[in-house]
Amino acid sequence: MADHISNTAPWLQIVQKKRQIRDDNIQNYLETQFPAVEPQPSRDIAISDNVQEILLDISSGAVTAEALCSAVMFRLTEILFDDASVRARELDRFFQEHGRLVGPLHGVPMTLKDQFDVQGHDSTLGYVGRAFKPAPEDCVLVALLRQMGALIIAKSNLPQSIMWCETENPLWGLTVHPTNPSFTPGGSTGGEGTLLSLQGSVVGWGTDIGGSIRIPSHMLGLYGLKPSNTRLPYHGVSVSTEGQEHVPSVIGPMTRSIESLSYVCKAVIDAAPWKLDPKCCPLPWRSEMYEEVQSRPLVIGIMRDDGVVRPHPPVSRVLEAAARRLAAAGHEIVPWTPGTLHQECIDIMDQYYTADGGEDIRRDMEVAGEPYIPHVEGIVNRGKPISVYAYWQLNKQKVAAQKRFLDMWNATLSAKTGKAIDILLSPVMPHSAVPHRKCRWVGYTKVFNFVDYPAVVLPAGQVSKDLDAENTAQMGSYEPRNALDGWNRDLFDLDTMDGMPIGLQIVARRLEEEKVLGAAQVVDKVLKATSTP
Amino acid sequence: MADHISNTAPWLQIVQKKRQIRDDNIQNYLETQFPAVEPQPSRDIAISDNVQEILLDISSGAVTAEALCSAVMFRLTEILFDDASVRARELDRFFQEHGRLVGPLHGVPMTLKDQFDVQGHDSTLGYVGRAFKPAPEDCVLVALLRQMGALIIAKSNLPQSIMWCETENPLWGLTVHPTNPSFTPGGSTGGEGTLLSLQGSVVGWGTDIGGSIRIPSHMLGLYGLKPSNTRLPYHGVSVSTEGQEHVPSVIGPMTRSIESLSYVCKAVIDAAPWKLDPKCCPLPWRSEMYEEVQSRPLVIGIMRDDGVVRPHPPVSRVLEAAARRLAAAGHEIVPWTPGTLHQECIDIMDQYYTADGGEDIRRDMEVAGEPYIPHVEGIVNRGKPISVYAYWQLNKQKVAAQKRFLDMWNATLSAKTGKAIDILLSPVMPHSAVPHRKCRWVGYTKVFNFVDYPAVVLPAGQVSKDLDAENTAQMGSYEPRNALDGWNRDLFDLDTMDGMPIGLQIVARRLEEEKVLGAAQVVDKVLKATSTP
Repeated sequence: MADHISNTAPWLQIVQKKRQIRDDNIQNYLETQFPAVEPQPSRDIAISDNVQEILLDISSGAVTAEALCSAVMFRLTEILFDDASVRARELDRFFQEHGRLVGPLHGVPMTLKDQFDVQGHDSTLGYVGRAFKPAPEDCVLVALLRQMGALIIAKSNLPQSIMWCETENPLWGLTVHPTNPSFTPGGSTGGEGTLLSLQGSVVGWGTDIGGSIRIPSHMLGLYGLKPSNTRLPYHGVSVSTEGQEHVPSVIGPMTRSIESLSYVCKAVIDAAPWKLDPKCCPLPWRSEMYEEVQSRPLVIGIMRDDGVVRPHPPVSRVLEAAARRLAAAGHEIVPWTPGTLHQECIDIMDQYYTADGGEDIRRDMEVAGEPYIPHVEGIVNRGKPISVYAYWQLNKQKVAAQKRFLDMWNATLSAKTGKAIDILLSPVMPHSAVPHRKCRWVGYTKVFNFVDYPAVVLPAGQVSKDLDAENTAQMGSYEPRNALDGWNRDLFDLDTMDGMPIGLQIVARRLEEEKVLGAAQVVDKVLKATSTP
Repeated sequence: MADHISNTAPWLQIVQKKRQIRDDNIQNYLETQFPAVEPQPSRDIAISDNVQEILLDISSGAVTAEALCSAVMFRLTEILFDDASVRARELDRFFQEHGRLVGPLHGVPMTLKDQFDVQGHDSTLGYVGRAFKPAPEDCVLVALLRQMGALIIAKSNLPQSIMWCETENPLWGLTVHPTNPSFTPGGSTGGEGTLLSLQGSVVGWGTDIGGSIRIPSHMLGLYGLKPSNTRLPYHGVSVSTEGQEHVPSVIGPMTRSIESLSYVCKAVIDAAPWKLDPKCCPLPWRSEMYEEVQSRPLVIGIMRDDGVVRPHPPVSRVLEAAARRLAAAGHEIVPWTPGTLHQECIDIMDQYYTADGGEDIRRDMEVAGEPYIPHVEGIVNRGKPISVYAYWQLNKQKVAAQKRFLDMWNATLSAKTGKAIDILLSPVMPHSAVPHRKCRWVGYTKVFNFVDYPAVVLPAGQVSKDLDAENTAQMGSYEPRNALDGWNRDLFDLDTMDGMPIGLQIVARRLEEEKVLGAAQVVDKVLKATSTP
């Protein structure tokens, strides 16, 4: 055995050790918590999708935090079980003694993408070279979640370097779509997405620099929020190309219910994260904004096509159906016609990720000498570093494009009131889940990182052989606009995609998290009220 | 004449032409508006320091916008007179017809540092090479000010490249202190400061990347606000090293009254600048925060020394006197002891300005081939450009230092309540106004650009031969800590500095403009209520 390991490449030895520890942790937990002599606890306890319902269940005594914790653990792969169990029992004792909850997230099981620092545990970012480097303290989010009573159960998988919309790395391997293992669940928050869709978590915390929360939410039929930068605390979350603050990564929650999404977002903001994170904006939760947008007809911009890559027929069908239902419910639909603006934004944006010539990623890769996944190899070799002066010029271009985007928003008006649109409704991707390593265009999501507007993804339908056959038949007739459009057209396969979830994206102005969440509540209600084919 | 000009260096020809146009504009305005045959209008109309009093005067008919406009113009050097006159007459007509003001700044004369884009006029930044390049449109601030009825009268002087705390450039020359021409009024917003102190403006708009609003306010006995980044709209304000967004320059007002400072700040925020400026934070004016801080005893951190350069005896005396009076008025004074933290922040910060190896400034200098002022030459030759990767590492250091600063604020507590300090009270500079080209240490101001906390400067006293003689006699005894401390010690000269104003700086947490302005109102009242030697 020792011999076998010493003949193995050093990076692979780390991988084996890390996986072994995970497996031992699970086994150990099972043996100590549920010895064979005792009757096994139910592994199939029903876990509500809704955080507030869970709190009611605990408050009424219908379930304990410990039972909830165990139920979730059986569906996981990475392990903070012992801490969570201890904490769950503490919470239950607290509740028994005081008859009240410790805080607004008392006993709610949560999981984290493997970027959030948790004291004593690794934050690998999918790099073998970051294994066995435990974080010295909790990140601000985790500190606040713990303080509010949340149970931190586990951390989950992400792609090597994070910079990809699928989920694969040499350390933990490939994360697959729960309904078809040859398909990707999306990424980079693919581990969280999969856990959630398998009911292995109630709230999953991810990060998003180009769509990494929204894409798995879309591909797995989940709810996800990408807030504006500075609204939720990023401090203590490790990230690659850290220090690149111009198109920043943000953190956000993923859930199986729209109510939970708003609830946890509000809870974290109510905890005043700006008192601990120097970058956080001291903007309290604005209930009046959240309520107001739910109280009246909305003006909704609709983006049918970003001008670069045409959506697949099922995506367009789901978007159109939603627009029709919203119009029928009294909301006004206004076309959003970006012309070449989205492409211009993305052309500027792409230069940031590789402005260092790939040095940041390369250094992380060299620590353990692990192999590159193909997508990361592509990023690292995309171009030479630019100068700081050129970088500053890029920032000027960025701000000018952000201004054009804002002007366009201000100029997209209701035909009835002359007021600007409240929200934008758009596809999340031009396709549903696809086979591994086939994602190429994330322009529908990343443009909103570029302008820093908050966006919610919600489930809105599925690919359907019945409903999409007709449009699909007409599809062969169009000439691709560009290589990406052609790639996407050729990717479509109604047979294998049948049944895959399709989400929609709702976007509001910068730092209007309350508005985008309130509007998502409205849209969700309209979609659920009618038959969703 | 033509011959003479053609023998002159090209940059000097631009200077001559630009100055000639200014002089012609003033002359022309005088001749057309006030021909010798008519009785001369009063040039000595009393102009209130308080914007709200001016509005009351106009509302009551005691004064017209036109009379006010003329009274200000006679004290100026750079010229938007014609536009302002036309606008003033429009405003007066509007008031006569409708019996109400056009907006919250109706008829209030304002001037701008020569960075703010005003359609059809240059924004030179003190560069000869930017002369005769009129801005295509108004910056967001100017657009909002106009919309609210303000009169934009003129633009004012600043140092070549802006990156200095004095005011000198080859285009417009040297700006001097009104009470002693061999002394600097400070900078970089030195033109505005001088105008205000000579009653040549009611509200002066400046910018601040290291102290450029606060330093002239201090040296001239004015009020000035440096807000946090993103609170007031920077869009359309030209700046050198533009695109360097990590230690950003901010805009802010300067006035002769504390009430005016709050009033104009509130007016601009009430105009929702985030709807036009993509970087602006959508944080409305919080009256409750502004009122609350004025309603109770404050916990005030006092920074007597930043640990790098000791203040001159008059500066320390004025600070101590203020602290005593505040304590006597019921406020609690808590020492702020930065240790080496301020120096660490500044060491990181200084690397940003020259991260491009001076390329940005050098390119501007090469346009007209103008001579360098010594300070700018120093910046440009300070070091080689760093890589984008190194720049990202610098950002990581920055955020870590900002976090340490925030933690220190959270840990500086009231002995009575255990709550953290509300505000910090500190010197603005280690000295009052000094002879030209003698400023070397702006650490007392720039550290708050680094952490991005809002700061108000208010006048708090003067250098006084009588009051400072005793402490001065003891001064020779201290050994300088470092070269800068020695430089500052040797700079002190009680005879020539006698009578120079001394300001104090009040600082609040990030984006708490309402709090810092409300607290400044409290401090100002306490200082005015007692004899201010």
